[in-house]
Amino acid sequence: VSYTNITQGAKEHEEEESAEASRRKTPKSPNMGTLMGVYLPCLQNIFGVILFLRLTWIVGMAGIMQSLLIVLMCCSCTMLTAISMSAIATNGVVPAGGAYFMISRSLGPEFGGAVGLCFYLGTTFASAMYILGAIEIFLKYLVPQAAIFHATDTLGSDSAMLNNMRVYGSICLSLMAVVVFVGVKYVNKLASLFLACVIISIVSIYAGAFKSLTHPPEFPICMLGNRTLVRDGFDVCAKTVIKGNVTVPSQLSESFCLPGNMSSAHCDDYFNQNNVTEIQSIPGLGSGIIRENMWSDYQRKGEILEKAGLQSTDAHGAMENFGMYVSADIATSFTLLVGIFFPSATGIMAGSNRSGDLRDAQKSIPVGTILAITTTSLVYFSSVVLFGSCIEGVVLRDKFGDAVRKNLVVGTLSWPSPWVIVIGSFFSTVGAGLQSLTGAPRLLQAIAKDNIIPFLRVFGHGKTNGEPTWALLLTGLIAELGILIASLDMVAPILSMFFLMCYLFVNLACAVQTLLRTPNWRPRFKYYHWALSFLGMSMCLALMFISSWYYALVAMVIAGMIYKYIEYQGAEKEWGDGIRGLSLSAARYALLRLEVGPPHTKNWRPQLLVLLKLDEDLHVKYPRLLTFASQLKAGKGLTIVGSVVQGNFLDSYGEMQAAEQAIKNMMEIERVKGFCQIVVASKVREGIVHLIQSCGLGGMKHNTVMMGWPYGWRQSEDPRAWKTFINTVRCTTAAHLALMVPKNVSFYPSNHERFTDGNIDVWWIVHDGGMLMLLPFLLKLHKVWKKCQMRIFTVAQMDDNSIQMKKDLAMFLYQLRIEAEIVRMYYWYNSNLTYIYIQASLYSQWHLQAQLVKDRHSLVRMGSLYSDEEEEVVEAPPEKVQMTWTREKCEAERRNRNNAPENFRELMSLKPDQSNVRRMHTAVKLNEVIVNRSHDARLVLLNMPGPPRNTDGDENYMEFLEVLTEGLERVLLVRGGGREVITIYS
Amino acid sequence: VSYTNITQGAKEHEEEESAEASRRKTPKSPNMGTLMGVYLPCLQNIFGVILFLRLTWIVGMAGIMQSLLIVLMCCSCTMLTAISMSAIATNGVVPAGGAYFMISRSLGPEFGGAVGLCFYLGTTFASAMYILGAIEIFLKYLVPQAAIFHATDTLGSDSAMLNNMRVYGSICLSLMAVVVFVGVKYVNKLASLFLACVIISIVSIYAGAFKSLTHPPEFPICMLGNRTLVRDGFDVCAKTVIKGNVTVPSQLSESFCLPGNMSSAHCDDYFNQNNVTEIQSIPGLGSGIIRENMWSDYQRKGEILEKAGLQSTDAHGAMENFGMYVSADIATSFTLLVGIFFPSATGIMAGSNRSGDLRDAQKSIPVGTILAITTTSLVYFSSVVLFGSCIEGVVLRDKFGDAVRKNLVVGTLSWPSPWVIVIGSFFSTVGAGLQSLTGAPRLLQAIAKDNIIPFLRVFGHGKTNGEPTWALLLTGLIAELGILIASLDMVAPILSMFFLMCYLFVNLACAVQTLLRTPNWRPRFKYYHWALSFLGMSMCLALMFISSWYYALVAMVIAGMIYKYIEYQGAEKEWGDGIRGLSLSAARYALLRLEVGPPHTKNWRPQLLVLLKLDEDLHVKYPRLLTFASQLKAGKGLTIVGSVVQGNFLDSYGEMQAAEQAIKNMMEIERVKGFCQIVVASKVREGIVHLIQSCGLGGMKHNTVMMGWPYGWRQSEDPRAWKTFINTVRCTTAAHLALMVPKNVSFYPSNHERFTDGNIDVWWIVHDGGMLMLLPFLLKLHKVWKKCQMRIFTVAQMDDNSIQMKKDLAMFLYQLRIEAEIVRMYYWYNSNLTYIYIQASLYSQWHLQAQLVKDRHSLVRMGSLYSDEEEEVVEAPPEKVQMTWTREKCEAERRNRNNAPENFRELMSLKPDQSNVRRMHTAVKLNEVIVNRSHDARLVLLNMPGPPRNTDGDENYMEFLEVLTEGLERVLLVRGGGREVITIYS
Repeated sequence: VSYTNITQGAKEHEEEESAEASRRKTPKSPNMGTLMGVYLPCLQNIFGVILFLRLTWIVGMAGIMQSLLIVLMCCSCTMLTAISMSAIATNGVVPAGGAYFMISRSLGPEFGGAVGLCFYLGTTFASAMYILGAIEIFLKYLVPQAAIFHATDTLGSDSAMLNNMRVYGSICLSLMAVVVFVGVKYVNKLASLFLACVIISIVSIYAGAFKSLTHPPEFPICMLGNRTLVRDGFDVCAKTVIKGNVTVPSQLSESFCLPGNMSSAHCDDYFNQNNVTEIQSIPGLGSGIIRENMWSDYQRKGEILEKAGLQSTDAHGAMENFGMYVSADIATSFTLLVGIFFPSATGIMAGSNRSGDLRDAQKSIPVGTILAITTTSLVYFSSVVLFGSCIEGVVLRDKFGDAVRKNLVVGTLSWPSPWVIVIGSFFSTVGAGLQSLTGAPRLLQAIAKDNIIPFLRVFGHGKTNGEPTWALLLTGLIAELGILIASLDMVAPILSMFFLMCYLFVNLACAVQTLLRTPNWRPRFKYYHWALSFLGMSMCLALMFISSWYYALVAMVIAGMIYKYIEYQGAEKEWGDGIRGLSLSAARYALLRLEVGPPHTKNWRPQLLVLLKLDEDLHVKYPRLLTFASQLKAGKGLTIVGSVVQGNFLDSYGEMQAAEQAIKNMMEIERVKGFCQIVVASKVREGIVHLIQSCGLGGMKHNTVMMGWPYGWRQSEDPRAWKTFINTVRCTTAAHLALMVPKNVSFYPSNHERFTDGNIDVWWIVHDGGMLMLLPFLLKLHKVWKKCQMRIFTVAQMDDNSIQMKKDLAMFLYQLRIEAEIVRMYYWYNSNLTYIYIQASLYSQWHLQAQLVKDRHSLVRMGSLYSDEEEEVVEAPPEKVQMTWTREKCEAERRNRNNAPENFRELMSLKPDQSNVRRMHTAVKLNEVIVNRSHDARLVLLNMPGPPRNTDGDENYMEFLEVLTEGLERVLLVRGGGREVITIYS
Repeated sequence: VSYTNITQGAKEHEEEESAEASRRKTPKSPNMGTLMGVYLPCLQNIFGVILFLRLTWIVGMAGIMQSLLIVLMCCSCTMLTAISMSAIATNGVVPAGGAYFMISRSLGPEFGGAVGLCFYLGTTFASAMYILGAIEIFLKYLVPQAAIFHATDTLGSDSAMLNNMRVYGSICLSLMAVVVFVGVKYVNKLASLFLACVIISIVSIYAGAFKSLTHPPEFPICMLGNRTLVRDGFDVCAKTVIKGNVTVPSQLSESFCLPGNMSSAHCDDYFNQNNVTEIQSIPGLGSGIIRENMWSDYQRKGEILEKAGLQSTDAHGAMENFGMYVSADIATSFTLLVGIFFPSATGIMAGSNRSGDLRDAQKSIPVGTILAITTTSLVYFSSVVLFGSCIEGVVLRDKFGDAVRKNLVVGTLSWPSPWVIVIGSFFSTVGAGLQSLTGAPRLLQAIAKDNIIPFLRVFGHGKTNGEPTWALLLTGLIAELGILIASLDMVAPILSMFFLMCYLFVNLACAVQTLLRTPNWRPRFKYYHWALSFLGMSMCLALMFISSWYYALVAMVIAGMIYKYIEYQGAEKEWGDGIRGLSLSAARYALLRLEVGPPHTKNWRPQLLVLLKLDEDLHVKYPRLLTFASQLKAGKGLTIVGSVVQGNFLDSYGEMQAAEQAIKNMMEIERVKGFCQIVVASKVREGIVHLIQSCGLGGMKHNTVMMGWPYGWRQSEDPRAWKTFINTVRCTTAAHLALMVPKNVSFYPSNHERFTDGNIDVWWIVHDGGMLMLLPFLLKLHKVWKKCQMRIFTVAQMDDNSIQMKKDLAMFLYQLRIEAEIVRMYYWYNSNLTYIYIQASLYSQWHLQAQLVKDRHSLVRMGSLYSDEEEEVVEAPPEKVQMTWTREKCEAERRNRNNAPENFRELMSLKPDQSNVRRMHTAVKLNEVIVNRSHDARLVLLNMPGPPRNTDGDENYMEFLEVLTEGLERVLLVRGGGREVITIYS
């Protein structure tokens, strides 16, 4: 048999490491068939120590039916995993290396690393389990005299045994590590010998079982009442023996009675009242013992093994704690047994691990693995039935064969001799331990060499002889942990967990890829289905939680931590992970979901499109725009950064990419999380229009545009700069988007500054949807603006009841839950301007303002005169007024609205240029007031009037804005889009 | 006290229903303060029957420490929920109505409906619990004689009691329903009376407890050995009594011995061997009994209550099952007690339910609710300690007070008389039942009126008197279910589940909104934190699973089903749900995650941008393009449908929206799940360039453009149609996108057709990245094309080893895992064209082809000559060759590549027009061959040559394509973008 247990991936690493000499060697052509390459290695890996040391005990405790259930659960779990694994393994040229390579290359480095380490830990603990098993065979059945620690009393016998295990286990581990370090080749040579041992042992069990049909072997057990006696220290199973015609008390009686005095008064109560009987430990296949072993008989710790059929008089004997009876050494339950049995089903990866050696991996791996699992499952099923139908229940439940003169229980059944199994299982267990100890460091080395887990880097190095020394050392240390636990029954569930985690991920990988229908998911193995993988995944999860929910949680936390660590370290490996496909699907689903309806006004939040200007060297001209955007978003919501490159698209691909990179770098610096969109257009203005139209996708559309002020437009001879600005303002209006123009953006605070005091002043002149109220609130969520106070300035008529107004506004703000200082109403000279409490859409706003304006000098015209949107106003369906302070006011306003248009039209009949001088006067006056009150404010928010309809007035408009904001350090001009609303409702 | 138990929302409905009369009434101004409006109603709702009927028993079983833990868990859970609720309730004007309104308006109808129904079911079962409690008080303590069923033997006493409960419970429920139906007003009037009962009862407990410090009440209990005797049927607690100077056996002895024979031989064994003692049931506060009651003493079912301190001789008496001893009626455990106690902590929503009546709801709700919870928690804590330190353990554990002459246990402690508590608790319980029965139908009515759960619609109607008759009927039926369960201890965990579900969602709503930082989340109540809400959520979940994991699962499944049902019904309510914010965050996160790196070639899949043409009426011209796109995607991956509207953006908003609607409708019809993007541009060509540039967002970008063929370009006099076509082809090339042009798209199959046979023929002429191989594979995933066979035609040189070639290709396809028939190489006349095995980027493709072309008549020129991209080829960094069949071939090709440019340049020096005639000849020849071989194919896939660089050749290029595809029914012209690759690796 010419296979080895080293994964091919690890081998490759070794080969790489070995010097030139090996390079000159022609690589062996892969030429193994299914039998040698997959079937037999799988077989050897699956069969393990549990079959020999614990299966009889499991059958005894759980009964045949529940044992079959345990075997069925474990084997169907591995079978389903094998199916998923076959699909993954046949999806393309199989990468050399086992589960780790398969998962990491198909689900990405994070999952791969987590699974790889789980598999590594599982294999490491498996080596500990094998060593413990070997020592158990050695100390219990081969050379019991070798024990170092001896129990001083019966209670201490357990701990003495555990200490023996620890000492011998550690010695054995060290020896094995040395063997692995020195001579891997010899270990691999012996693989076939180990396999032979296993097969011979199993055959001898079958032989023994069938022989028992006619000639059951002679292993009498001695019962006192219905209690099983430890067959130790007495020969004859009777109360008295006839010694030279005299009936004298037997050795048995002597141990139950006070020495020297054999009268019943000085003997144990239970001994007195019950008879001693001798029964056969192996009644044989034909005896019908199967009926007694059919159902479970779980025990509490220390419970004495009793045979149900025998008569027993209940009496309270004193000898119960004295080691005379065979008792259960641990409490058993179905769940515990699942955890102990599961390691017998692992090892299914052995075939895929040597994919590199196979002639036709895509055929051999599925066929060989599934055949091997079928074979082993059949052996387990038949063994369970045979054990149950050949062996007496109390013997089955007797874990260490105390009742049968400390023979291995399964050994008593075997033919020709118990020694076949004892020696066979010893060697196979030692071999399995050696192989685990060989495989685990190489797996660790392979993971370390992938460099996805930086702190493992040291384990990637090997010595000149190719041995991964450090990895071996770590493996030894972890295995030593397992050995210090010392109990096979405690270690088995631990390794079950890690293997189950690994299998879970294999199933997950298959299910995810099938469901996502990635185009590269085309496994040659056709008999997979996502439902099977999903079932397998559920079974893995179920088995984990069944066998031990806290271990399961710990294993999952470990796997999760590894995952997060690798993600945090930012594994650069781009292995084309399936998770990316998952993200894609998730993003698509989320976007489609968002698109269902327009967002409710309650949910309105600014989704920014920031229009950046780039200079000739493709540097961002005003990076503070980005800073301000990041402060406004405080890390939440959508931000798209758009820019236009002037040129012809067919020639400007490179320039476009450079610009994108520049902007992305700047976004990184300013900590803006969002997307970048560059457009090449022959005219900047055109590019901006297209950006405003087509940025975003589905429900992720911008609703607010942020752009810089065209500084120096007065000096520039080229009118394009401010023409583009005004055009953009018009576009945002046409697209119903809100607009923000931070002026003097270079004076805006960086993300490192902190305002410890000062005000954010809102000049609430046009009482629109409330965006002016919302923006300071959002800004104050960011730490730069946190300490600022918000002040609201509003404008009143001379004859208004200002006290009541202020009270009303305060109440309104209270209900809005926005904390702001309301500054005493500012009285506008002799205007009869009034303030409007309504939160209306843009349209109704114009209506109302138009209706309310009586004096043409009034301030509100600033907003209304420039907009010139009368047609749209008339055409637009009257949108519902969203909120008023009270119901009455709302109704009053609604009534007013009906007679609005006439006034409005009258107003509009004025030629725009007629009022230019007056308007400018208004701007100067208002600016005076604002500078007077807000000169020391950290930020001043102002309504931005709409641009004139005729392009003739453009220059005046720009001048108007300049005059309005003159002398203020930081101004944010805001223009609502008609949809943004702040409500008093939640 | 002028509060009612009806939610304000339900009230509003009532008011609406009542006729004009009520409309004329001026609405009562909300004027309740914190005390009357929130604190007292909460107090009354929280205190309940459990305090009187079960708390002593809980203290007895769980011990003081664990009882405190239970109280702490339940109360901290409700306290955390109250904090979350306060935040939600103070976020804006509080909507009238309770938890249902709050949740549905902040998390959306799905969650709202699920929570509302959970709350409804909880309230309904609460009414059942109150009725059962009232009946228990009535039958056990008030009028025991009223029992209808009597136990025939002791074993049957439980079931007799249950049957009594069922009968009386049903009667009581009917009566209450009638009362509710007839006179809600009276019920509400009595609310203050019920509260008074509760408060008096609690005060009497405290009074009794403190009185016990000096004068403990006299309630002797009789013990036999350490067992507690049922104080029933005997007066004197002694074995003998002295009757007229003669010592005669007491009544007690008579019941333990055979009648008439009082000698010890005929008496019960245990009775003989143990003494009878009498101890005080209430040793009082100062007795130190607290030490005995400190720790838990859980019982199995039927276990006899024993006092630990008393002496007892163990003997097996015959009377154990004869009702002489007080025994546990159910098995108890910590988890069970949690479920039973929890209803005592519910009721915290009572305050927020009457938000409409409050003067300042934003202040009163948090303060009142939290104060009420604090008060009740303190009462519970102190009660636990007082009970534990005043009452004897066996009495505490005695659920029905059997040992104290069937007195209510807590009654024995109270002062001045047990009757205070018995009567007080009876009335308060009846009152609570009435109120639950009043509140539940109104809640159901409110949910039904929201019309989010269609099948509940009938319950929205009320009768003329405002009573929700049908809802009351349903509530009665569900409550009857609870009453048929008959045991308070079984019903309590059920309602716990529903309330916990409700609280869980309240916490979830608060946590989600806090974490999402939605701008409209500005609660006035500041002392919330997402971590607290999260903790509360976890506690709810933990309590659910602690008290009963299967009930928990059932409750969650019910809630989940309601959620899914409402979602499925497509609730139209747009309440601005927080879940939308969650989708937004999820989409943004997923998109940002996708953007991290370019996708791995392995993950490449077509992400389509379908360019649709609209006619003048804005109808889709070739809807089959969409059909084909949907077939190609088979429901997965990204599809963006783009179209251009010609015009000026400032004027075309309406047209744009109409076009979008038209396309969306068509997408719906053709079942294309994707996004739609309309662009208004002055020229169509410009619009298309911008679409190609700026569609998609972040990682969701298209990589393939699909467009129609400009049919009738030859007839049309306007050259724009085909100029636009060629320009788009050039753009896709510049943007490195793949291009697909289905020709004769109207003949393509609809989604309803099924091809049962036939071929998809691939003419693999330019051996590019493998897109030609991938597309048929993807198409075959759709059911229309499933049954088609894929055939690959490729071209070879005359002198090639065609057998070997075919074998190689077959092997290649095997490793690709694509099933296709390879058609015998087609020998191109005397060309020395060769085929290339490489899967290279577009650039390297051109390189290689140029290098390999020796004869200028060869076919490959079709690809290379037209492309004319030499500069870009030279500039572009040599991209890595992605895959070759074997390593050697790859290296050979790489070597070849190095001397490619020279040949290429030589080739390119030819003027394009020189070879026009020859090229056309090539096209005719090739077309002949294709038609000959593939005339009956279902679909023919062809490489599309690149357009000429000089626009002069455009017309020739179009002609060339026409000739090439002439006579074929369905042709798909494919042009790779250089990134799409099919790999043999997984």
